[in-house]
Amino acid sequence: MESLEEKRKRLLELAKQAVAQAYSSGEHSIIQAINSYAELEKVKNLIAERLSEWYGIYFPELKVGQHAYALIVSSIGKDKKKADFDTLSKLSGIDASTLKQLASSSIGIDPSEEEYKQIKDLADLQLSIEKVQEGIDAYLKQAATRLMPNITYLLDYKLAAELLSKAGSLNKLANMPASTIQLLGAEKSLFRHIKYGAKPPKYGILFKLRAVANARKEDRGRVARAYAAKLSIAARADAMSKEFIGDQLKKALDESLQKIYAKPKASKKSEQQDRQKGKGKQSKK
Amino acid sequence: MESLEEKRKRLLELAKQAVAQAYSSGEHSIIQAINSYAELEKVKNLIAERLSEWYGIYFPELKVGQHAYALIVSSIGKDKKKADFDTLSKLSGIDASTLKQLASSSIGIDPSEEEYKQIKDLADLQLSIEKVQEGIDAYLKQAATRLMPNITYLLDYKLAAELLSKAGSLNKLANMPASTIQLLGAEKSLFRHIKYGAKPPKYGILFKLRAVANARKEDRGRVARAYAAKLSIAARADAMSKEFIGDQLKKALDESLQKIYAKPKASKKSEQQDRQKGKGKQSKK
Repeated sequence: MESLEEKRKRLLELAKQAVAQAYSSGEHSIIQAINSYAELEKVKNLIAERLSEWYGIYFPELKVGQHAYALIVSSIGKDKKKADFDTLSKLSGIDASTLKQLASSSIGIDPSEEEYKQIKDLADLQLSIEKVQEGIDAYLKQAATRLMPNITYLLDYKLAAELLSKAGSLNKLANMPASTIQLLGAEKSLFRHIKYGAKPPKYGILFKLRAVANARKEDRGRVARAYAAKLSIAARADAMSKEFIGDQLKKALDESLQKIYAKPKASKKSEQQDRQKGKGKQSKK
Repeated sequence: MESLEEKRKRLLELAKQAVAQAYSSGEHSIIQAINSYAELEKVKNLIAERLSEWYGIYFPELKVGQHAYALIVSSIGKDKKKADFDTLSKLSGIDASTLKQLASSSIGIDPSEEEYKQIKDLADLQLSIEKVQEGIDAYLKQAATRLMPNITYLLDYKLAAELLSKAGSLNKLANMPASTIQLLGAEKSLFRHIKYGAKPPKYGILFKLRAVANARKEDRGRVARAYAAKLSIAARADAMSKEFIGDQLKKALDESLQKIYAKPKASKKSEQQDRQKGKGKQSKK
């Protein structure tokens, strides 16, 4: 018979196997990665804001994008007039003579050695965060495309990872009706709709799709629905059959989208506009 | 007569001098530094949370402080069982054999190479943020003590920098009545008091003083007031006379505090308690 120690070991082994299986798909890491990416985006913006506020004391004339700003601050040195403007220009893409002109005519004083060190540290921190984000981005591209070949054929891998994160797992995503996928990320406004009778939401994170955001306002709901319908099939293929049908789905999706775009404005929706037009006519009389 | 170009140059020079004078005290940098420090504290906590959530998938048994956690994750390597436990122990102060035991009996699987790289990047980012904070802390200690020798004699240099930041400038701080200094940082609850008749606040960021936080609840307002009274004198000395009177102020402050501590509980305040005592007596009857 098994000793207690043997039993303990065997049960631990079983538990390990169960955990290993649950985590083997790597989807938990994808979820962590996309959430970390979003958090880092926030964090980076906070630090960039602090940086431009602080260094703005010393060089208020420097107005460039967030990334170029950190690069310049990191390399400009304590005394901005003596900076290596060619290097700064290469780093930031801004004309060397323009930078030189700005620095030499700046009304800002120069920071002390100690002050500049802290400011440079902040700039370098921002650049490090960008580097970490790049790494996570590359990882997500590879991992999300492998886990969800069909979904990522229809939309950006980061958006696919976001859908996965909102759903909680690939299996949950695969078991969701298209209408739920359409509204993933719109939980709050769905709640407001149900509880307070606010307008029902038409899309959640799918709004990040260019096709949805760029559609005519009255078409956006339809475009999101068309996507959600195909995404729901794609999710089932990714989670269960593991077959690649992304190309077929994409073709079908494009056809649905063409139909939506070709449709003239719906009459129901434009009732109000008609009424306004009517008013316009009256006032012209 | 001056040409237009000469006039332009002269005016620019004047503007530069005015800016240089305004910023020469370094107090703007101190304000930026303390605000950046606080922001980095938030950011660090956010990243530490993400880190432990992500690596928790792979090593759920590892439960150590935030700083030690990042150090361990950064050095443990992809395969936790093969880690250099002596190094990890030195880094984290945790017994090597305990760590080894935890790693070898962990139910977590190991991350892939790519997954571990992202996790390690997050850990390293957290450690970088801590480094930047240390630098800012050292800078603040030196700069705040130099700018505000009297105030920093009465309280911690970071708290002094916070007061400065809330006030906006040393001159503004010096011109504030003690009662305003006492409530710096309590603007919201002061507003609630004035607008909705909520309880008036007794202290703002001075609550961070150990003397205030550790005082009996009914004494806290008095302790904060005693500090504020001396801080207001200290601020005037730092901003205007530039004399060092910190030691005298500290002595006077300590005396006031002793008086507060020595006072028996105020009778008004403890009416309710008296009533409760009365009840207690009754129930004993």
